[in-house]
Formats: sequence, C-alpha cells, structure tokens
Amino acid sequence: MSQVDRCAHLPIAITMGDPAGIGPEIIAKAFVEQPQAMRGCFVVGDVGCMRRANRLFSSLGRPLLPVIEWSAPPALDGLPPGAMSVLQVGATLAPMAFGQVSALAGAAAGHSVLRAAADALAGRVGAVVTAPLHKEALHAAGAPFDTFPGHTEMLQDTAARHLGTAVPVRMMLANEELRTVLVSIHISLRQAIEAVTFENVLQTIQISHRALTALLGRAPRIAVAGLNPHAGEGGLFGSEEQEIIIPAIAQARALGCDVQGPYPPDTIFMRARKPAGAAAEFDVVVAMYHDQGLIPVKYLGVEQGVNVTLGLPFVRTSPDHGTAFDIAGTGRASAASLLAAVAMARKLITS
Amino acid sequence: MSQVDRCAHLPIAITMGDPAGIGPEIIAKAFVEQPQAMRGCFVVGDVGCMRRANRLFSSLGRPLLPVIEWSAPPALDGLPPGAMSVLQVGATLAPMAFGQVSALAGAAAGHSVLRAAADALAGRVGAVVTAPLHKEALHAAGAPFDTFPGHTEMLQDTAARHLGTAVPVRMMLANEELRTVLVSIHISLRQAIEAVTFENVLQTIQISHRALTALLGRAPRIAVAGLNPHAGEGGLFGSEEQEIIIPAIAQARALGCDVQGPYPPDTIFMRARKPAGAAAEFDVVVAMYHDQGLIPVKYLGVEQGVNVTLGLPFVRTSPDHGTAFDIAGTGRASAASLLAAVAMARKLITS
Repeated sequence: MSQVDRCAHLPIAITMGDPAGIGPEIIAKAFVEQPQAMRGCFVVGDVGCMRRANRLFSSLGRPLLPVIEWSAPPALDGLPPGAMSVLQVGATLAPMAFGQVSALAGAAAGHSVLRAAADALAGRVGAVVTAPLHKEALHAAGAPFDTFPGHTEMLQDTAARHLGTAVPVRMMLANEELRTVLVSIHISLRQAIEAVTFENVLQTIQISHRALTALLGRAPRIAVAGLNPHAGEGGLFGSEEQEIIIPAIAQARALGCDVQGPYPPDTIFMRARKPAGAAAEFDVVVAMYHDQGLIPVKYLGVEQGVNVTLGLPFVRTSPDHGTAFDIAGTGRASAASLLAAVAMARKLITS
Repeated sequence: MSQVDRCAHLPIAITMGDPAGIGPEIIAKAFVEQPQAMRGCFVVGDVGCMRRANRLFSSLGRPLLPVIEWSAPPALDGLPPGAMSVLQVGATLAPMAFGQVSALAGAAAGHSVLRAAADALAGRVGAVVTAPLHKEALHAAGAPFDTFPGHTEMLQDTAARHLGTAVPVRMMLANEELRTVLVSIHISLRQAIEAVTFENVLQTIQISHRALTALLGRAPRIAVAGLNPHAGEGGLFGSEEQEIIIPAIAQARALGCDVQGPYPPDTIFMRARKPAGAAAEFDVVVAMYHDQGLIPVKYLGVEQGVNVTLGLPFVRTSPDHGTAFDIAGTGRASAASLLAAVAMARKLITS
C-alpha cells in the first residue's frame, strides 16, 4: 500500500493526445466545465495547443481559463486552482490543421506520452491519463514511435526499459455495467487467434485477479470467454477451448484465482453485465480478443467507458474513444469518458 | 407478393426441439399463457412430449390445455382454438430424461425439423418456427443429422435438394434494437476468417438487402463491420478489409444496395442500435462472424431475440437461445423469445 499512499499525494498527468484530434479540446472542456473533478491534474503536451483549445470554449461563450506553463511536473499542492497547468514537452508547436494525419502531430502526441511515463516511473506523478492519439499519425512520426501500435505498447516498452525486465500488461475496459480484460489488443484477428496460448490466457487471468483485488478489496469473480462460437460446442467448432483455455483456467484456479469458464462468448458478457442496482454473476470477463470484449463494453454508448492498463508499474487510464478527426476543433466532443478516466485513475491511486 | 399472400393463409409450424431441453415446455407455456399470440400455430413433434409439457403447467396450477393429435398438417381454419394441435412425427417416443444428451432425442428433434421443412416446401405450412435442438444430441443421432451443425444447415440442405440448386442462406438475429446478419455461423473462428471471401461478403449484403426490403418496404441502410480491430486501422492490423471487404461493398453498391463500411467492429453495433423511440444510423449490420454479431444482439438480454434464416424458399424463425438443459423440465424457462419468433414469422408472411 505504500506505493498507493505515495501516489495519492502526487498529481495526475493528462497527456494531450494528437493535436489534430479532440484530445486538447476534451481536456480543456473538462477543466472548464468540471474544475472540481480535474483538481490535482495537469496537462502534458503543448501550451499553444492547449491555449487554442481553451480559446475554443471562450469563443463558445465560456469563461477563459488561465493557462499556466510548466517546464517540470508541478507538485500536487503547487497546482493553482481555477487554472489549467500545462507541462510543455519539447519546442512549441505551430498551429495544426484539425482532422488530418500528420507526422508532426503524431510525434508531439508520442513525446507527451513518453514524458508522462518517465515522470510516473520517476515518482513525480501519481497516475497517467492519456487522451487519444491517432495510430496512423504515430506511425508516420517514425522512430521511436512507428513500432508501437498504440499507447499501451509504448508505455509497456518504456516501463520494461526502466525496470530492466519484461512487463506483461493487459487492457481492461470498464464502464458502470461491465469490466473486461483482453488477452490481446492491436493485432489482426488472425494473429489474435495465435496469441491465445496457455501462457497468455493464464497471465491475463492472473493480472486481472491482482488488479481487481486491489480495486475491489476482495478476490474478483472472473469469467473467461471461449474463443470459438458456443465456446467450441464440445470441440465441434474449434479445439482451443479444450487444448488451451480449459487447462489455463485449471492452472489459475490451482493458483488461487476465483475463475470459471470458458463460456460461450455470445452470452457471457450479458451474464456479467450489471445494470444499475442489480447484482452480476461475475466482476470481470477475460476476453480472447479485442472486439470480443470491446463490442459489449461499447454497445450502450462509449461516453462512460474507461480503458485501464493493468500490469504497469504505475496507474494508467484513458477514455475509450479515438481522436474523432471528423469533429475535432468544433468543441462538440464529449469530455465524459475523459472525466471517467480521471475518476478511475483517482480511485486506483487512493483506494 | 403471391407467395406471401398464399403463406398468410397457411398455418405456422413450430418444431418442438430436443425433447430433453426446454423446447416442449416453452411451446406449451406460450399456448397456455398467450393463446391469442399462438393462433394459427401447430406443433411438429411428439404428442407424448407435448402432453408431458402441458401437464407440467397444469401441475403448476394452470388449466390443462386440450392436446389434439394430427397425422398431417392441419389447415389454418381447421385449427381448433383453445387447444394445442400436434402433428405426430414418426412413432411415439418413450418419456425421456430432461437435461441429457441423447441420440434418440436428437433424432426426434431432427425428424421434426425435416418434416416441417418438407411441409413448408410443399406449400402446406406458411412458416416454420424452430424450438432449440441440442447440437451434440443431433450429432449423436447419426445419419442424416450428424453432418449438420444445426437447424440452419439442415433447412438449407433440404431446400437445396427440393429446388435442385444451391440455396445460399444467412442467419439474421434481431431484437427491437438491433438487426445483424452473419457471414458465417457454426464454424471455428479460424474457419470463420477463411469464410470472409469476396463472394460470401457480397452475397451476405445482397441477401440482407432483399430480405429487409421485403420486411421494411424500402431498401435497408446496411452497415458492414470489419473483420479486424479498428477495421484493420488502414492495413496495420490485417488486410482483409482492403483486399476483400471494401471491394465486396463497392460491388454491392454498384448492384444497387445502400451499403457502407467497413466500420470498426467495436463501435458499429452501438451506432446501429436503436433504443426505444430513437432513430438509428443503419437498419442492419453485416457481421463477419458469429460472435461479432451475436454478442451485441444478446447483450441486453436474450429473451426478445429472434433468429431469422434469410435466403430459404420459406420463412423460418427461431428463438435465439439454446436447450437450457440445466432448467429443462422445471417450467421456469421463458417463452418470450419463442413468442417473438412466432410474431416475426407472422409479420414476414403477412407484410
């Protein structure tokens, strides 16, 4: 608990995301509309971008929030209330066109993430909340960013270099009704099937068990989805359940996890869903691939969804939507998922 | 419209499903509790099974419904109201244990389906509604049933033999909020990826277009989901979108379909969802594999879901749940999805 106690006394870093997307404006919107929810937070990115986002809301009739530039992470008690603090990463950016893939924007987004991760690893920030970046822009930015499909892999690599050891991580998506942890994320479906190995499934169950024990204060009830329709229907539609998933579940149970399955993918998420006030059968569902878990989490609307990276040596959350290039710069994007990500990060470092 | 007009004057056949499952009792429950909704329907199966299901409800305090045995499909105006008509298929069955996979039960379920299909193809019934069968029992029943993973393939094969030509069919799952049509169903996820071909995707779009034009009275707005996470993210996570799905969509548009995509699978179902009273962006989503489409359709609860087989020369619907061996024989299973399937069949033959 000492790490949690320490983190509770550190500020939360919010990376600004791709400057051509909605990242800067949802952060500014959150600071303008929900200052209390954003207490103890500062932005990691570019002051010019954040000023522009801020002006967008004043042009829409909101009060102009003071923007304070920092060259190092501020201390929690040094963050002035009623203002938006921004840690400038690298040189100031020239204004960028909204909604366009650009190597410059991708690099700016990538450097913000690396900086926030470095500060988290050095114990200067308590948690990292990442606004959306655009994967094609990140790819266009070249080295070191073009080898990373997204945030998660970049943070994982940074942590592994810092610790000098491999850092297995998993993505958890959560909203008020459902939590799911994914065996794999940003690879093709073909590759995702290959990634369903005994080690990966077991590790996903164990990471879920550890992270949710910390969040819930008790061992979570874990359900594991099958890979194939009807979880293979007794071997008729695929053998991965019998050869891989069932043995991994048995091993996880032997290691003390409260885990059951594999269940037919088309109904297990419905069973684990917890409508307001109701009790669910499970606390989390381990999903075998990206869309298996993300389709149900997003089905009721993405605004409240939060992405949590489990397994990193620091807390990292993010909204579960993308850069929304089609509406970037209009101020229409909702800050709800970002606010939910901030609230989840706060809960994870204070519970 | 002549076929529809004719079918509207024919009865609806309901196959009883696996006698060890909940099929007989949800049919009896529907007749007992919603006689008006079941008007014009008769059961295809075994009189003894249906009498037992009927007695279950009288033992639970409901009135005992008269059961009438038929040896040929009754005419619509020959169906006595206030009774359950049953077409006996083959020899009477000895009572079977609930909740157990049995070759005898699988064969009884299979023969009921073949009989109903034959009567539909011969123009003696207007639509077929199928109660759930158990795939392992069907498999255990041996020839001719063990080559069929489920109802759909059996009906497809029967229709193809009758017509002397291939009958491409697709499964549509629908509830009040969402419709989805699947490129493939009861095969492993590995095989499902191989089934994402230009021909199969194009055919799925065309079958969806034809069937929903009949149902809605206008061309449906069709969305196509990608296969890979983020619909491949511009080729970074898989090439099937660019090599197969985009060309198939282009061809379908050239042929007059109102179709768009491929969309990221994790958000397109949310976009196509139509909460009560709201307008959705699309009328139907073409899903690339079983669980991609069925997870969202079932997420809000399976009771209202209906399975419709598109492409057959007759109307076929079914509830979207299984045999529920764990509660078979208790009378607890809900008849809601069966009733929704009957209502959908009625709509399809009268609209």
